[in-house]
Amino acid sequence: MKKKTVLNSGYVELVEWMGSDNAVIRNARRCWKSQSKGTESDLKLLKHLLRKGHKTPFEAAVFTFDIKCPLFVARQWFRHRMASYNEESLRYSLAEREYFIPDDLPAHLRETWVEHHEESFNLYEKMIAEHYMRREIARSILPVGIYTSFYWTVNGSSLQNFLMLRTDRQAQKEIREYALVILELVKKISPLCFRTFEEVVLQKGGILS
Amino acid sequence: MKKKTVLNSGYVELVEWMGSDNAVIRNARRCWKSQSKGTESDLKLLKHLLRKGHKTPFEAAVFTFDIKCPLFVARQWFRHRMASYNEESLRYSLAEREYFIPDDLPAHLRETWVEHHEESFNLYEKMIAEHYMRREIARSILPVGIYTSFYWTVNGSSLQNFLMLRTDRQAQKEIREYALVILELVKKISPLCFRTFEEVVLQKGGILS
Amino acid sequence: MKKKTVLNSGYVELVEWMGSDNAVIRNARRCWKSQSKGTESDLKLLKHLLRKGHKTPFEAAVFTFDIKCPLFVARQWFRHRMASYNEESLRYSLAEREYFIPDDLPAHLRETWVEHHEESFNLYEKMIAEHYMRREIARSILPVGIYTSFYWTVNGSSLQNFLMLRTDRQAQKEIREYALVILELVKKISPLCFRTFEEVVLQKGGILS
Amino acid sequence: MKKKTVLNSGYVELVEWMGSDNAVIRNARRCWKSQSKGTESDLKLLKHLLRKGHKTPFEAAVFTFDIKCPLFVARQWFRHRMASYNEESLRYSLAEREYFIPDDLPAHLRETWVEHHEESFNLYEKMIAEHYMRREIARSILPVGIYTSFYWTVNGSSLQNFLMLRTDRQAQKEIREYALVILELVKKISPLCFRTFEEVVLQKGGILS
Repeated sequence: MKKKTVLNSGYVELVEWMGSDNAVIRNARRCWKSQSKGTESDLKLLKHLLRKGHKTPFEAAVFTFDIKCPLFVARQWFRHRMASYNEESLRYSLAEREYFIPDDLPAHLRETWVEHHEESFNLYEKMIAEHYMRREIARSILPVGIYTSFYWTVNGSSLQNFLMLRTDRQAQKEIREYALVILELVKKISPLCFRTFEEVVLQKGGILS
Repeated sequence: MKKKTVLNSGYVELVEWMGSDNAVIRNARRCWKSQSKGTESDLKLLKHLLRKGHKTPFEAAVFTFDIKCPLFVARQWFRHRMASYNEESLRYSLAEREYFIPDDLPAHLRETWVEHHEESFNLYEKMIAEHYMRREIARSILPVGIYTSFYWTVNGSSLQNFLMLRTDRQAQKEIREYALVILELVKKISPLCFRTFEEVVLQKGGILS
Repeated sequence: MKKKTVLNSGYVELVEWMGSDNAVIRNARRCWKSQSKGTESDLKLLKHLLRKGHKTPFEAAVFTFDIKCPLFVARQWFRHRMASYNEESLRYSLAEREYFIPDDLPAHLRETWVEHHEESFNLYEKMIAEHYMRREIARSILPVGIYTSFYWTVNGSSLQNFLMLRTDRQAQKEIREYALVILELVKKISPLCFRTFEEVVLQKGGILS
Repeated sequence: MKKKTVLNSGYVELVEWMGSDNAVIRNARRCWKSQSKGTESDLKLLKHLLRKGHKTPFEAAVFTFDIKCPLFVARQWFRHRMASYNEESLRYSLAEREYFIPDDLPAHLRETWVEHHEESFNLYEKMIAEHYMRREIARSILPVGIYTSFYWTVNGSSLQNFLMLRTDRQAQKEIREYALVILELVKKISPLCFRTFEEVVLQKGGILS
């Protein structure tokens, strides 16, 4: 699946997944040793699970995303502990000259903003190239708006928790943009689970809109 | 993949998986933003990760198994918390007349054993059919050797922990049989990761005899 | 704190805890680097956290319980993975002659029930004493209603999840009795957190009564 | 317990704990329903647990620390998922003018370093005060070396994993300083567990130099 651009330099890409709607329904029905009895009854079952907080069947679905986002977004993201992360490290690799720029910044502030970030990168690169500072120390100079990238493996239940908290209007707008892109992606792959989740949890809870 | 029989009535079946060797290596290399440089260097990397306890790249591999085993095996299994379980429930479904019989039981003991288990099932079924006892209460009568079944979704890192503890000669023989079957299965799917794991962790640690 | 009896032979005992109401409020306020501004404003904060699903401050409270319950209750209990368990093992120790007896069993069924359980123990003990069967195998004979005991260490957030699912009228009556005893215990230790939880989550959700 | 200073402006403070050596030994012995038989036999038991990777008894010990450290240290810290975090938020509070300065920086570089950080703070404060930029956006300007503070609740097993990875000579020097301070603290509170851990895991594994 191709990359979806988010913010000025970020992206979301769905790399791999397993366990579509069928897997979640299959797992839920193991409880009764029963089989799916058609879409209508499956939907009723999914609504019941979501309303009662019976989350384990959704763990049969697992997704790996490739994410690129500003550090301050990544820091909110990594608070979600029921997931796996492999992130690029500025101990070992050199930071690329990419940083968050708010899209609604007036021109004169934008200039100041860019100048500050470019100068930060200049100093960072100089410290490493001319003063032999270790990368892991020199990164201390870089702004919190630099981009980082990581693989994120998360199951359907933990993803729903992420979406509930991060599509909320009280979440920071920047991570909310990522969350909304991810919601659209998983609604395509697993429409029964995630459309039902959107309806039962996000809309009924007044989280979206 | 077809079911592998374990013990007298159990099985292991690999239902779904994602993230083969390539995914683990891809995730590990994100740290340096580097690409695979061939099998030899990948192997070296995997050995390093296993020796240092850097487990997160193995979490990019996820497996769902269908397991049928005696209750006393399931109770040991469910102690592994970094995994997802959906089990049949004797609150809602009726227990099938299947139970563990040790394979090395002398004939006269085997007769006593079977008789006890059959009588336990007789009483269980009678309590439900004739005395309208709820299933969730009547199951209290059944022996700990009855079989149960569950879906188990587990990532590669947590699976390695399971294999380390449950292929150990000090583990109970019955769960060890399941662990050894699972080890063979994942060595076929993800040979670089799990053969290396077997060599570096299980054999060097003296776990497999 | 002394043991509370549950069912015919079980108990709940609170062994140790840390992080009372003050710790939860202290942790929640770290977000704003603010201090408690009195009980009324603390209560408002706790309600907000519970309604929005911001659970981490409740993880500053941790409880260790000693629990004795029937196996079928323990099996439901151990499904709660965000907690620590240390259970007695019938691989190493001999089962005591204690088992669940439903309190509403008519006299003639009670006799049959007791007789079956006593005979199961007779066979178990005979297999070990006379036929040198290993304990870990002989336990297979014992009924699912035998008692087991374990230490349970759980934080406030995970405990709330347990209470939400296990005080529910749809939960099995037997585990519900344990959950209700635990709810009373923690309401004494941490009244702001757990009375508010009871009001906002259990009562508003229609879970209790 | 009083704060221990780490780096130029950070600290570690042990705020609360439960479950000393006795609790760990008590939990381990529940398996056999046995009692402590004196220090020598307890030590032997602890060594056995550590060597075999039987970690759950160590989860009976739980510690809450108050930590202040640079963001780049916090980002490594928060990768440890089996723990609870409550961190100050720059969405709601204003960043204090504190930042990491390497202790071995030559005077002329130190001047450049300080100047860059002070100017970053100047711009950050100006954006908020004069241009009404939201704090959550303006923080993007601040360097990765700013200090943050958080409460960290972690059990003994997860703490051992942290110490194993972060006292390692391959860990970044800055987080290693925190890890070594924490190791000394817990060795005082829980000497049997953590001296044995240091001996069996850190020294035998060649982790501490």
